[in-house]
Amino acid sequence: MPENGKPVRIAVDAMGGDYAPEEIVKGAVLASEQGGMEVILVGSKDAIEAHLPQRGISHLPIRYVEASDVITNEEDPAFAIYRKPNASIVVASKLVKSGEADAVVSAGSTGAMAISTIRFIGTIESITRPAIGSPIDVLAPRTILIDCGANVDCKPHQLLSFGIAGSVYAKKLLNIDNPTVALLNVGSEEGKGNEAIKDSYPLFQKSGLNFIGFVEGDDVLSERANVVVCDGFVGNILMKFYESIGPYAGAYIKKRYKTFRMLGLGRRLFKNIFSLTSMSETASIGGGLLWGIDGIAMVMHGNVKARQVVKTMVRARDTVHADVVNYLKSEITRINREQSL
Amino acid sequence: MPENGKPVRIAVDAMGGDYAPEEIVKGAVLASEQGGMEVILVGSKDAIEAHLPQRGISHLPIRYVEASDVITNEEDPAFAIYRKPNASIVVASKLVKSGEADAVVSAGSTGAMAISTIRFIGTIESITRPAIGSPIDVLAPRTILIDCGANVDCKPHQLLSFGIAGSVYAKKLLNIDNPTVALLNVGSEEGKGNEAIKDSYPLFQKSGLNFIGFVEGDDVLSERANVVVCDGFVGNILMKFYESIGPYAGAYIKKRYKTFRMLGLGRRLFKNIFSLTSMSETASIGGGLLWGIDGIAMVMHGNVKARQVVKTMVRARDTVHADVVNYLKSEITRINREQSL
Repeated sequence: MPENGKPVRIAVDAMGGDYAPEEIVKGAVLASEQGGMEVILVGSKDAIEAHLPQRGISHLPIRYVEASDVITNEEDPAFAIYRKPNASIVVASKLVKSGEADAVVSAGSTGAMAISTIRFIGTIESITRPAIGSPIDVLAPRTILIDCGANVDCKPHQLLSFGIAGSVYAKKLLNIDNPTVALLNVGSEEGKGNEAIKDSYPLFQKSGLNFIGFVEGDDVLSERANVVVCDGFVGNILMKFYESIGPYAGAYIKKRYKTFRMLGLGRRLFKNIFSLTSMSETASIGGGLLWGIDGIAMVMHGNVKARQVVKTMVRARDTVHADVVNYLKSEITRINREQSL
Repeated sequence: MPENGKPVRIAVDAMGGDYAPEEIVKGAVLASEQGGMEVILVGSKDAIEAHLPQRGISHLPIRYVEASDVITNEEDPAFAIYRKPNASIVVASKLVKSGEADAVVSAGSTGAMAISTIRFIGTIESITRPAIGSPIDVLAPRTILIDCGANVDCKPHQLLSFGIAGSVYAKKLLNIDNPTVALLNVGSEEGKGNEAIKDSYPLFQKSGLNFIGFVEGDDVLSERANVVVCDGFVGNILMKFYESIGPYAGAYIKKRYKTFRMLGLGRRLFKNIFSLTSMSETASIGGGLLWGIDGIAMVMHGNVKARQVVKTMVRARDTVHADVVNYLKSEITRINREQSL
């Protein structure tokens, strides 16, 4: 963590993402103007420079670190991070480990990001793989879904660690005093569910978390639970499904309301409502902090544009200030102690 | 199956559902006017009669079968069907077994319906538990999600049986010639996913189904796959989540557009768009046929009103005509033969 008042140093993987480096570089430049941060653009200097603003950036807190390689989505991430030591995501992760950066953000391959941060930054004690957790914007901003990554076939102790991480997130970043935590299930009665969920119930009960039991699919958006815990298999499918509904619903409505539009009636109103309901710009869960990494690492969707890069970088800055990694460590120690009593 | 031209006899559990018997009876009466069916109302005669239309029903093809008991959602279904031999769902299931009815429909406890039909009608050979599959109305009516019930911790051979059932559904009820079938997963590349999904892949590949591989959460509504196969744990959560989005999105939009409404602007347009986007009346997956039962058994949501009862009964009638049970049996025999080659 930076000393008080010092800017937060954020290493940005300039080469990862569907619209990289252009949109990533644009976003990073805009973010540097938000204050309170120093931007470290990691990637090929030539590629980055091509997308810098014409007026120059000498007045902005931005610097480069060269990384000549990129890991693509098509590569096996475990293999690629060894084969490409100069990949932007590898170089950026190492900046956090060495203390030259306070956080790393990337829109590249999520798998490469996870493995690179595990390998080069390391995980918190008793956590083997990081989880992705994030608020459900825009319909349930006070509910965190965790894990949205792809930790599959999760064991009860992993689900518990997701619950702890989600609870820390809600406290430190959403300022919720005593966040409610629930397990996502097919029924609300004790004894329902698959084996992993049923075995997790008693662990959550004696965790000291504000555990409210099971919630079902139709309760996810109710904000009854501030933290909804699930296996990454379920969370990943739910997250992608949620983010896709806006565009599909939008297209459906557009088709049905062609007549209105042809008549030129309520064009502006229609457009507003459409953009809201389509939620294509705003509804999102994915991305977010890699919980369990011993440092701040934020993944973004592959398809992010500059505006979303800014948003993520601001969140990274605030996450560094909230000192969540240390807080999470102490929570895990406390709960492990209580579980073994 | 009824002889050609004869009406389809549908046993309706008049006592099951949040608004039973009133809405169920109303719906059954309306359905009887649709033609091609004979309605058998199963329940307490007094309770049913209180909700019959004042003009009488002597001109309609409706009759009663007495059942003095009801199984509630709070009861353990496995226990309740033995303890209450006169429960409406038990009596209605037995009518199918004895050949007095061609189909049974119920909005009561899904668990009780499943266990009652397994016990009193029986399952198709090599299927131990029925699955619930249904098109994703309104956004993806040509895609069937199966299983939406709660067959949890499913084995690969169960997932395959869901795929076969879904494929029969698409062919016989949606008239899709060669339906595409996909496994719902966290990634589209082979080798991704949890153990059950990975082990299912080769079974699907040599099944003779039109298997297109894995689809992810954001592909469910694209109609790329006519059949999306998943464990009932995932399907149930996804279904309930989907059905809840309309109301939550509707409430969100309503709040944001208060100003518009206060100004009295575009009131009618707003109302139309709202009702569509809220999808609260139309978007649904749940309910549908219990695939794997050796007869036609349709479950409805607990909260159905008369209009939805009519819809389900009409679908039950058409399902009987499509002879799906025999078709499913022959498909399973064929695929089992191919798998063992």
